[in-house]
Order: sequence, then structure tokens, then C-alpha cells
Amino acid sequence: MAGPDKTHDSALGIIAGGGALPLTVAQSAREAGRAVHIVGVRGAAEEAIEAFPHTWVKLGELGRMLKALNDAACRQLIIAGGVRRPDLANIRLDLGAIANLPAILSLTVGGDNTVLTSVVGFFESKGFEVVGADEIAPGLLAGPGPLGARRPGKRDRADIGIGLRVVASLGALDVGQAAVVAGAYVLAVEAAEGTDRMLARCGELRPWGRSRSRRHSGVLVKCAKPGQDRRVDLPAIGPDTVNAAHAAGLSGIAVAASDVLVIERERLVETADRAGLFVIGVEPEQGA
Amino acid sequence: MAGPDKTHDSALGIIAGGGALPLTVAQSAREAGRAVHIVGVRGAAEEAIEAFPHTWVKLGELGRMLKALNDAACRQLIIAGGVRRPDLANIRLDLGAIANLPAILSLTVGGDNTVLTSVVGFFESKGFEVVGADEIAPGLLAGPGPLGARRPGKRDRADIGIGLRVVASLGALDVGQAAVVAGAYVLAVEAAEGTDRMLARCGELRPWGRSRSRRHSGVLVKCAKPGQDRRVDLPAIGPDTVNAAHAAGLSGIAVAASDVLVIERERLVETADRAGLFVIGVEPEQGA
Repeated sequence: MAGPDKTHDSALGIIAGGGALPLTVAQSAREAGRAVHIVGVRGAAEEAIEAFPHTWVKLGELGRMLKALNDAACRQLIIAGGVRRPDLANIRLDLGAIANLPAILSLTVGGDNTVLTSVVGFFESKGFEVVGADEIAPGLLAGPGPLGARRPGKRDRADIGIGLRVVASLGALDVGQAAVVAGAYVLAVEAAEGTDRMLARCGELRPWGRSRSRRHSGVLVKCAKPGQDRRVDLPAIGPDTVNAAHAAGLSGIAVAASDVLVIERERLVETADRAGLFVIGVEPEQGA
Repeated sequence: MAGPDKTHDSALGIIAGGGALPLTVAQSAREAGRAVHIVGVRGAAEEAIEAFPHTWVKLGELGRMLKALNDAACRQLIIAGGVRRPDLANIRLDLGAIANLPAILSLTVGGDNTVLTSVVGFFESKGFEVVGADEIAPGLLAGPGPLGARRPGKRDRADIGIGLRVVASLGALDVGQAAVVAGAYVLAVEAAEGTDRMLARCGELRPWGRSRSRRHSGVLVKCAKPGQDRRVDLPAIGPDTVNAAHAAGLSGIAVAASDVLVIERERLVETADRAGLFVIGVEPEQGA
């Protein structure tokens, strides 16, 4: 394997799932003077990746992925952006994948961490160094304290405390990374459905949030799982998360300061300030 | 307060929320030769309660509830069937309720257990003995072992084990009582949305369950919360739960043997056998 110096001189490979994270990482790397090559997963990655050197692949075309990364002389690799677990059912295997069938099969059982750790292990076995998005762009982490103008009130802080305990107790079981708590009541716990769907559900569950008083209440709490492999799937929030939390009648969002990525921070803060929501980085609970 | 003998001779009051449980309890009591009076909550209780002596009240008409129960000479009381938490927002208070405002206000903060314990405490303070449905009809509890013809396979048993751990770790926080696990992957965790909505979500989340193979997989696991007040809101399953689990592509249901009520057991078993689902009573995990 290449030494660290050579690794960092090489192009950065980005395997891009959905969302803005792959683009944010690519932009950060380019600003740092680094060459990048994005391998976009069709049906997941955004078209905007075409602003960078890129190759489109289908999920499961491991042979094509490896070839694209090697052709672009990438030795260091980031896996960024979600590929929803159900999509794994639509995998079409190419020859490169079939040659690695045991690794692929191991993807079909277990929690998210298990799956993603297998993915990392696969690319490592091919000589790549897999790194986390926050290693390339440390400014992406939420950091401690409020991100915008608003701060949580007393009831919000109580809800945050409960949410942190819920997420910590589940994270130890490799389940979701988020929960919604309003008035000391746990409205929703995230598992496979993802944060956006969980927030939509909360909006439906609590018509009283708006009919009774116009005051929003309740908090989305989002953390990393204890022992989460930071190289894949660090939890993230973005402007859309703020909009969804607002639509669900919540008063704010609390994230684990050193474990949650903030996508498009500037626009997120604007969105939160306009909607009157707080967004704050907090210290997570230790796992149960 | 009346002594136990006199209590058991008196009519059984049943405050009826939604579902078949209040009717099942009323039927059991009548078969045991006991007079009953059902106080049905409008918008929640089923019309079929009219087969028994009954009074309709709106949620929050505590004065009317107390009067109906006293008029029917009920000293012992069961609170059965769900009143969905969001409905609490639509409470109309009558004079009897306004006289008890602190008790009512205490209903608007905290988890389910907190809320329901307040309800029990309120009726106890009025001299009623509040008992659990399983005390009147012990045959309602699931009991250990399979209820129908099918039994869980090896993968199902592994999924059951994971589900029990998830539910136990959350129950300590007064959150949901159910989770769905498929292939060692936690698909969904129940909080305020209820089991039916959680199952519907699972069906949407996993198209692969049916597209890839026709074999159903995954288990709904349902338990009581640790320290749950057994006099209110013991978790329950019924034929509809089996249908919903089947529609979600699951292979079966596991419930805590001594803590989960089975509504319409005969029809539930028929439904499960026809659909090829197992339903089994198991020993729950100790809370985290």
C-alpha cells in the first residue's frame, strides 16, 4: 500500500450515494488543491456530481467502480451519501462483484453498521485507504453550541435530554440514530425509514402542535451510534432537515456536536433562523 | 372504601376506549355472572358496546363518567382500549373535570405510563378500585408457546431475540412496546404512532420481501414496558395485527407471554394459520 504522503497526493475517490454530502466533500477537497474523481451510484447520486470528473455506475457494479478509481489513480476513498437499504435488493452484479460474492452476500444480513463495515472492508482489501468525510472536511462537523440565532428553552432542553437517552440506548443495538421528543413524550424513534420519513410521521401524529397553539414544540435529536465506523454514514443534517422539522411542528434540532455532519451550513442557518428553529450541537449520552 | 367481597359483588365498570378489548372484558365478566356497565368514550369506543348497559361520554366529561359509574353502583373499574394520545387535545372539560383540573393538566406532559397512571390515580381518589383486564379475564394473556400451527424458524428466533432487546432497552424510557426485525435488521421501532402504522411503514420499506422471493421474513415483537402499570394499556394483539403483519411481509409475531393480551384468540389463530404466520408467547428480556 502507498505511504501516507503518496496517498494524500493522489486523487481523492468519492463513491457518491444520495444527497449533497458527496458534492460538499468534493468541493472541500478541490479547494484544498486536491484532484477528485466521483463514482456516482445511479438512482442515488445527484446529477450535480457531473461538475467534477466522474463515472456513473450501478449499485453492484464493483468491477466498474474499481476500474474507475484505479484509472483515476485514486488511493484514498470516501464513501459519502446514503444508499437506502431497500435499494440493495435491486443490485445487479457485474463480473467484479461476482468475483467478490462472499463480501456481497455479507451485505444482506445485519444492521447498518455491519453492512457498511463490510463495504469498507471490501475496498480496503483492494488496497484503498477509506477515510471519513470529516477527515477531508473537518468543518462539516456540527461543533458545540447553537448554529443559528435561536437557543433551546427549558422544555426543549428537557426533551433533548430524553432524546439523547433514547438514541444512546438504541445505538448500542445498531438501530437508528434519531428520535423526536415533545413535552417529555417520545413521538418517534428512527429505524430503517430515515429521518425525513420519521419527521413526516411526527407532523401527522401531532395536529395539536398547531391547532391548539401556534407555538412549535419538540426536538429532533440526532447522534452517531456508539462505536459507529466514522468512515461511513456519519449522520448528517441539512437545510431540508430543518424544513422537515419545521413542518413537523418542532421547535428545534439537537445533534451530537462531534459526530454529526452539517451539509450546506450557511443555508441551514438561514433556513433555521427564518423558521425560528434552534439548531444546536450537544454532548451525546454514553451508550446504555 | 368497600371491602374486597363487596367490591367483587358490585357491578364492574368499564371505561371503554377503542378496539375489541372492552367488549371482550365485558363478555368475560357477564359469563362469570357479573353485572357490567360500560362507559364508552365517543369517537373511540365501538358501537357494539350498546349490547351492554352503557353510557356514552366525551373524553373529558369526568363528571358524567363518575355519575354513570356511581348510578350503576360500580366500585370496581377497568380502563380498556386505547384513546390515542393526540385525541387528548380535543378534550372538552365538563364541570366534573374542571373541579379536577390539576389531575387533567398532569395528563399533558410525559410518556404514556405517566399519563395513564394519572388516570388510574384520579379514579382511585374517587373511591374506585381500578383493576387490569387480565384480572377479570386471565385467559386473555397470550401465555407461553405457539398460539397457532406455525413455529418460528432459526432466523425468526434470532430476529425475536434482537427485537426483545430493542423493546427492553426502550421500555425503560417509557417509549414504545414494539419493534420489527427482519434478517437481524431493525426495520422499525414503535413510539407514538402505534403498532398498525409501524407495520404499514415496514411494508413500504421492504418491497424486496416479496419481489425477490415469495418467502415472508421478519418478526413483530411486542412486550409490556418494564414497570408498566398493568391496570391500563397492557399491550394487545388481535386478528387485525396478524393481517397487518402479513401485509408487511413478516413471517410472524412474538409477544411477551404474561404481559400481552390476545383479543379474539380463536379468530386470530385462524387468521394466522391461514396466512402461514406464527404467533408465539415468549419470555421478555429484562430491561436495560
